[in-house]
Amino acid sequence: REGGMFKVLQVADMHYADGRSTACEDVLPEQVAGCSDLNTTAFLYRVLRAEDPDLVVFTGDNIYGADSTDAAKSMDAAIAPAIAMNLPWAAGIGNHDQEGTLSREGVMQHLVGMKNTLSRFNPEGVEIDGFGNYNLEVGGVEGTLLANKSVLNMYFLDSGDYSTVPSIPGYGWIKASQEAWFRKTSSSLQKNYTSQQPSQKEPAPALAYFHIPLPEFSSFTASNFTGVKQEGISSPSINSGFFTTMVEAGDVKAAFIGHDHINDFCGKLTGIQLCYAGGFGYHAYGKAGWSRRARVVSVQLEKTESGEWQGVKSIKTWKRLDDQHLTTIDSEVLWNRGSNGRGGKDHDRS
Amino acid sequence: REGGMFKVLQVADMHYADGRSTACEDVLPEQVAGCSDLNTTAFLYRVLRAEDPDLVVFTGDNIYGADSTDAAKSMDAAIAPAIAMNLPWAAGIGNHDQEGTLSREGVMQHLVGMKNTLSRFNPEGVEIDGFGNYNLEVGGVEGTLLANKSVLNMYFLDSGDYSTVPSIPGYGWIKASQEAWFRKTSSSLQKNYTSQQPSQKEPAPALAYFHIPLPEFSSFTASNFTGVKQEGISSPSINSGFFTTMVEAGDVKAAFIGHDHINDFCGKLTGIQLCYAGGFGYHAYGKAGWSRRARVVSVQLEKTESGEWQGVKSIKTWKRLDDQHLTTIDSEVLWNRGSNGRGGKDHDRS
Repeated sequence: REGGMFKVLQVADMHYADGRSTACEDVLPEQVAGCSDLNTTAFLYRVLRAEDPDLVVFTGDNIYGADSTDAAKSMDAAIAPAIAMNLPWAAGIGNHDQEGTLSREGVMQHLVGMKNTLSRFNPEGVEIDGFGNYNLEVGGVEGTLLANKSVLNMYFLDSGDYSTVPSIPGYGWIKASQEAWFRKTSSSLQKNYTSQQPSQKEPAPALAYFHIPLPEFSSFTASNFTGVKQEGISSPSINSGFFTTMVEAGDVKAAFIGHDHINDFCGKLTGIQLCYAGGFGYHAYGKAGWSRRARVVSVQLEKTESGEWQGVKSIKTWKRLDDQHLTTIDSEVLWNRGSNGRGGKDHDRS
Repeated sequence: REGGMFKVLQVADMHYADGRSTACEDVLPEQVAGCSDLNTTAFLYRVLRAEDPDLVVFTGDNIYGADSTDAAKSMDAAIAPAIAMNLPWAAGIGNHDQEGTLSREGVMQHLVGMKNTLSRFNPEGVEIDGFGNYNLEVGGVEGTLLANKSVLNMYFLDSGDYSTVPSIPGYGWIKASQEAWFRKTSSSLQKNYTSQQPSQKEPAPALAYFHIPLPEFSSFTASNFTGVKQEGISSPSINSGFFTTMVEAGDVKAAFIGHDHINDFCGKLTGIQLCYAGGFGYHAYGKAGWSRRARVVSVQLEKTESGEWQGVKSIKTWKRLDDQHLTTIDSEVLWNRGSNGRGGKDHDRS
């Protein structure tokens, strides 16, 4: 868009069910009357109008299958505002989307058939776990040398629902097949960006979106994140290594999730920002008096002195609250070109 | 051997350098005089005579390269007792073996050329990180139907030395290429064992040996392990997921490491025993008055009522201390056939 900016709005955990007949959870006593899924819809319209994003990303638990009479209808209603406003959107699935009339596979198949979506079912010709593993490429400014190159990469992964290994309780995790696909895709994108004309010095930055927090989201204390941690980190009980995979690949600068509705922080760990969106939906647990919210990511291109748009210069974020003024909070820079990582090794005597 | 038993002696962190001229570390004042690498040699002879293992496994930091004049000579001297006693042995490398006159590659190449070794450099035809990734198969009793099948599998992995990713300080980790090799090997071994005649109901159990602790070694408290934790767990600062890979594969019942010399515990996590050996070598940090030690694993085959030897029934362990009586401590059962895993899922509301 004008000004070399690309804006993504993340909507986490809408928990949409049957619309007007589905009540709100965890709102103030004076908000209970008449509160329903339609409040989620109203918030989505408001924030889309206020932010006018270039892409809307729904990071799972878009619908709350267990309370939905017809999963496809619930999903259509949940996503409707993005479609009505003619915005491109991408979605993944969480651990509740498949609890209704559609399986996980069925939910993802429905999503990829919807209007205006950039969602994809899975990469072709690859054996992969889950549904909704794909990547999107954001081209440079039209008319510039980077018009046909991806200056920003986005990865979407299915973080599963529950463990299927009897000895491991709890949530699912990103599997080796998904990590292998990510690694291969990242490597290829990086190679193209730095080797194909006009060749670039550094790979393009990337963002990752999925539903369930990685165990590394537990690494932070209040002193080293921005936002709030009001509940435990509901990650899987074992670590399948996707954080390490991202660090090794090097292009992902920030990973965005949902799942825990009343956590909304971003914290930086070994060069990668780990960010919650905070819960969006009204038929989802929350905290009465603590506004439902959405996360915005704003990606800014660099401009040469001669006025030519280049690759990405910085990635910023903030959140929008569903209060009277759609208050913007916790605005921060997630990444700046040239500020990668940290050096040094800690050796001990072992 | 007689009685359907197979015994493995693990020797961790010998830190061998120049023999007689290399002094002991962390011994009692009255032990200092005349104490050298030769005490390590003497201990190895003693424990080999006492246990008479079927296999000796050296899990890295076999030599302390920085203090070694000639890495090959140091390694020869370190391993010599096993060779002199004509015992088969297998070795991996740690984070100190390469600090002398040989590179990591060079150390592993030297090891695979030594007498009586079952060590291998790396699997053939596979691109893999590190040096010394291989597996060994232990056949059933000769003359029985299982004579030509592997009733016990052993995996050896190179857990690296130090991180090469600038943003990540500290120790190295098991890489995706190694996990992929392990997964493929384990899957193939399990398939053969359960499908080829005489087909078996359950896959054969397996043991894994490497040097650096996985991050999951930090999961235990004194109430749920056997042995001692007297220092921090020096695992890499990120989790590359090898523990999850082992849990998913299902055959590894116990993983054995070294690296932290004054930890010697075993703790069970989601069906896998994670075991330290405790430090063996005298030219290695330790704790004065706390004996150098080695870990024994005893694998027992099952016998039918008609007297035919079957697959593995149980895996036990204990440690031997380098004290006057070569005291045996912390004897425990690591695994029994039919005692796999635990059930149940913990769901929460996210």
